[in-house]
Amino acid sequence: MRIALGVSYNGQAYDGWQSQPSGNTVQDKLEAALARFAAQPAPVRTLCAGRTDAGVHGLMQVVHFDTPLARTAFSWVRGTNTFLPPDIAVQWAQPVPDAFHARASAVARRYAYVLLQSPVRPSVEAGRVGWVFQPLNLAAMQEATEYLLGEHDFSAFRAAACQAKSPVKTLQRIAISRRGATPATCPASADAAAGGGWQPCYWRFEFQADAFLHHMIRNIMGCLVAIGQGSQPPQWMAQVLAARSRSAAAPTFAPDGLYFLGPVYAPHWGLPERSPAYDWLP
Amino acid sequence: MRIALGVSYNGQAYDGWQSQPSGNTVQDKLEAALARFAAQPAPVRTLCAGRTDAGVHGLMQVVHFDTPLARTAFSWVRGTNTFLPPDIAVQWAQPVPDAFHARASAVARRYAYVLLQSPVRPSVEAGRVGWVFQPLNLAAMQEATEYLLGEHDFSAFRAAACQAKSPVKTLQRIAISRRGATPATCPASADAAAGGGWQPCYWRFEFQADAFLHHMIRNIMGCLVAIGQGSQPPQWMAQVLAARSRSAAAPTFAPDGLYFLGPVYAPHWGLPERSPAYDWLP
Repeated sequence: MRIALGVSYNGQAYDGWQSQPSGNTVQDKLEAALARFAAQPAPVRTLCAGRTDAGVHGLMQVVHFDTPLARTAFSWVRGTNTFLPPDIAVQWAQPVPDAFHARASAVARRYAYVLLQSPVRPSVEAGRVGWVFQPLNLAAMQEATEYLLGEHDFSAFRAAACQAKSPVKTLQRIAISRRGATPATCPASADAAAGGGWQPCYWRFEFQADAFLHHMIRNIMGCLVAIGQGSQPPQWMAQVLAARSRSAAAPTFAPDGLYFLGPVYAPHWGLPERSPAYDWLP
Repeated sequence: MRIALGVSYNGQAYDGWQSQPSGNTVQDKLEAALARFAAQPAPVRTLCAGRTDAGVHGLMQVVHFDTPLARTAFSWVRGTNTFLPPDIAVQWAQPVPDAFHARASAVARRYAYVLLQSPVRPSVEAGRVGWVFQPLNLAAMQEATEYLLGEHDFSAFRAAACQAKSPVKTLQRIAISRRGATPATCPASADAAAGGGWQPCYWRFEFQADAFLHHMIRNIMGCLVAIGQGSQPPQWMAQVLAARSRSAAAPTFAPDGLYFLGPVYAPHWGLPERSPAYDWLP
């Protein structure tokens, strides 16, 4: 029997998703917990929808695995969670046909990047938001995203270690929103802000593509922030994309604010579309 | 010269606010960082607006201290943050008259409790939200809060270790809001939810009083949750309050979801009223 699971995790303590000799990855923790619940000597092997890097969080990673055990859906959830650390939890379990494959059946993936714009670094939210010191220009960033939408060779935003077969992906959606202070309340200097006149704000960037290259979003974020801060014009994004060379782009942005929102599957699989924790992100 | 600071922290790693022999408290970290920035051999002594327990977070703790050093406001912020751990940061600094006292000048304190309602325990938000398994009834909880508003002897919600001179406090405001799923989508059982039909939600409870007793909010939360889950009627809150005995109330709720939003001062002090991270809470 094939089972699909939705898994949420805070990536701060882990060496990314994919199993490593260290054993300190989310996949390692999940497979060990599944084996303990299933009372199997060896880890239960899982396949995931999208591997995440060290420090990147997952709101709804989806995996599948095959098992001879007959258990109710919720007993897979509750039983596995008993053996998982506090920062990882299975959100749902559902039997799926053998034709379902967590990676191959995914028609798209969704990510969010949460960014704190403040003269002061994160504290309460440390490890869970990226950080920029200077105010960002929304219109400039939105103009820059227009160049990225659609099918392109994204080699400029691809990490050297990327294992994707092709650098050509289709970016279907980029949405930028802000929560908190409006631009009018942002003073020009940090010293003006020190007295509390400038309420910092949180930016949320959502991305949807058929698939992403390794570090693609963090590299795009680096360019968007350079444009948002005015150190490059919006058209620079088109130049970087056209260059198809990693050296053309800005440095890779921090993993801290990156969340894998989850894969998108055809409706006939009947799987949940959205993570509960989606409402918890700024 | 007297300086006031606004400080944010994630309380998960610390033994509460107040200085301890362990040295592992937020006050210890702050005073050590101030001393390093001020290049003083001894910690700089601070007085705070409201001490928080182990595991409780601070969005805008306010402290004051006296110093002979002349520095710009923002250099206190930036310089002190250099020596603070990543989960604590000074948000603002401001010179204040000697008549200002972080604790004595505060006319009220504000707290928020964030609660995840889900069949599955927290993961991405572990340590930063409380958790209830069963759906809560908003109307019942709102009715119960009516009994608490105004001036009362809150002995029923007071920890044995409480050092307050009087158990009589004035609760000025309790506001309950929900983010995420509406009640109509909540099924009766966890098994119905396992397939993803029930999107969990986040509850936010805000409290404002002239001052709070030790554990007062966590004890009130225990009672509100009992009422919200239907194990007690709303009127039970009035009985607990009237009993003036800790044994009448529900168990103390977890510290995880509790945030000190900050003190309220008279406007003439000119201090920031709200933490930036207020927009970051669900």
